Amino acid sequence: MPSFNFTIHHKEKQARTGIITTAHGEIRTPAFMPVGTAATVKGMLPESVRATGADILLGNTYHLMLRPSAETVAKLGGLHRFMNWERPILTDSGGFQVMSLSKLRKITEDGVTFQSHIDGVTHHLTPERAMKIQRLLDSDITMALDECTPYPASEEDAAASMRLSMRWAERSKAAFTTRSGYGLFGIVQGSVYPNLRKESAEVLKKIGFDGYAVGGLAVGEGQDLMFRVLDDTVLHLPETHPRYLMGVGTPSDIVGAVLRGVDMFDCVIPTRSGRFGRAYVEGGELNIKNACHAEDNNPVDATCTCPACTHYSRGYIHHLFKAHEMLGPILLTWHNLHYYQNLMARIRAAITAGNFTEFAKTFLGVQNREK
Amino acid sequence: MPSFNFTIHHKEKQARTGIITTAHGEIRTPAFMPVGTAATVKGMLPESVRATGADILLGNTYHLMLRPSAETVAKLGGLHRFMNWERPILTDSGGFQVMSLSKLRKITEDGVTFQSHIDGVTHHLTPERAMKIQRLLDSDITMALDECTPYPASEEDAAASMRLSMRWAERSKAAFTTRSGYGLFGIVQGSVYPNLRKESAEVLKKIGFDGYAVGGLAVGEGQDLMFRVLDDTVLHLPETHPRYLMGVGTPSDIVGAVLRGVDMFDCVIPTRSGRFGRAYVEGGELNIKNACHAEDNNPVDATCTCPACTHYSRGYIHHLFKAHEMLGPILLTWHNLHYYQNLMARIRAAITAGNFTEFAKTFLGVQNREK
Repeated sequence: MPSFNFTIHHKEKQARTGIITTAHGEIRTPAFMPVGTAATVKGMLPESVRATGADILLGNTYHLMLRPSAETVAKLGGLHRFMNWERPILTDSGGFQVMSLSKLRKITEDGVTFQSHIDGVTHHLTPERAMKIQRLLDSDITMALDECTPYPASEEDAAASMRLSMRWAERSKAAFTTRSGYGLFGIVQGSVYPNLRKESAEVLKKIGFDGYAVGGLAVGEGQDLMFRVLDDTVLHLPETHPRYLMGVGTPSDIVGAVLRGVDMFDCVIPTRSGRFGRAYVEGGELNIKNACHAEDNNPVDATCTCPACTHYSRGYIHHLFKAHEMLGPILLTWHNLHYYQNLMARIRAAITAGNFTEFAKTFLGVQNREK
Repeated sequence: MPSFNFTIHHKEKQARTGIITTAHGEIRTPAFMPVGTAATVKGMLPESVRATGADILLGNTYHLMLRPSAETVAKLGGLHRFMNWERPILTDSGGFQVMSLSKLRKITEDGVTFQSHIDGVTHHLTPERAMKIQRLLDSDITMALDECTPYPASEEDAAASMRLSMRWAERSKAAFTTRSGYGLFGIVQGSVYPNLRKESAEVLKKIGFDGYAVGGLAVGEGQDLMFRVLDDTVLHLPETHPRYLMGVGTPSDIVGAVLRGVDMFDCVIPTRSGRFGRAYVEGGELNIKNACHAEDNNPVDATCTCPACTHYSRGYIHHLFKAHEMLGPILLTWHNLHYYQNLMARIRAAITAGNFTEFAKTFLGVQNREK
């Protein structure tokens, strides 16, 4: 089994491209991880997700611990076998969904107690339990348990929340079983406060992780502030380790974050947008449900090589959405994931060629013009 | 362009196997046509439907005339191009759905006036309009407009309804544009009355069609009565032409009807059952939502080579249905279509080998034991 490892192949200013090696294979960075919340990327066969160019998927600990349970997934061969994805998987720790989805949650030093949003059953999640669950799922990349600080937060609240997350990070590290090819990431918190972000990064570095995530962003603060916090945070993270911006984002978020040295992303935007009829095209989005597409024989994007654009007209996909046919969401999810993976491939190629700064300038310019 | 043509290769008593040649390719008979109601087999990519072994799909004139309209489909290249299925397509005439789905319908000698179940807009369907619509859709096999006689019906009502359908059949034939490779089928009606079925078959033969369908069955009369009516009807149909039993059926319905000389079938059972969690396995069905499957690491059917059975456990598919994930219906639809097409392949092979009578006896025995 190879060691968990990150090799940087090319750098251009802060941006870098490389390979993360895991127990289930390699991840080309910068990488976008499609979200497979409940052990499936909604509407997609795993081989189709792979065909878009994805090297790694994200699974949600919160959803899987509630249904079907980590123990059931383990009994059925672990998450890779369960969902027929034999490549790398990262699982979040559940902290974010506990905050955003569960009911009656109560946070103590020990952990968080909450009621399932599915059946109301009470669960208790601690750093130790989060490690156990992710081990049962057999995640290649395990995330430390953190409290996702609500936004906005006063500096005092943000500091208290971040320091709790740091104590949980230390317990996560202690409870994590080291295995060759498997990695554990810490999560930087601290809201929008540079001194707190610095403190958090320093604590995590001292504990020592295989990678460092930036949490608590893309929660309503806006792109400008997100980029500013990122500038203040990445500065304090080790050059040598993967950096993961959690839950981000739009194409321009991603390009801007890669400029700032981020290597990994996950987001429900491409899949959720696709299910709701929105398709990414160069420079913006289109809503296939708009009446103007009803008799349009052109593909969603004439430059795109995904199956939706190769075989079907806008008029047909418009019809599928109007008729509430599953194939509509399936085709646009596929298209959007293809768009995102193609964007990542272009980003990696630009960094390799040394013209990513130029690429980003053009790309962000186009995106802004379309707004 | 080849002529529309039916060649019988092998016969065993009433059962036969052969090839129907159409403008968009060949259909191996006995054939099962998956239903693509609104220009999509729900949840399936057309290449996946093809991979199960389907040679031909059925499209619903009623649904397509209402949404997106036959004119829109024509503008977007015809139904084959529209839905990316370049193989044969049969469209029903809309008669059955007008009866079962529309509101405020009024039948006159001229045709049927009804309100769309989607938006309440009033439509008028005549034999001439049904031919025009199916021409716009570019169906390889067009069905004459008929009134689907409700069940049960008195002999008097059944006779009046059948005779109206026969006058519509004559007008359908007159309005149908003959093109090489395209066929028009007439539909035998007459409810459960042998004399009416005979009269209907005789009228249709005199008009002259490329194939003969048996309509008005599988509407609640039960399998025994359906088989009896089929015995009374097939007798009066020409040996040389394809016979199509509309809207049928279960695996045992199909095997029993092939024994009685039927060549073509369509039914929503495999796709609808799949969407609701029911999977066909040899000798019966299973409901994947049952709790007994939650931790079952076996495939739905260990003898099946479909993607659902090759790559996934019952436990995983159970989880997908519990979590309301699209992939659950997708996988079981695929499995059921594979089961049906595999059944048709076994039927064709048995007729070719001259042991279909034996096959049917065993198959129907197994099905009955499971009931």
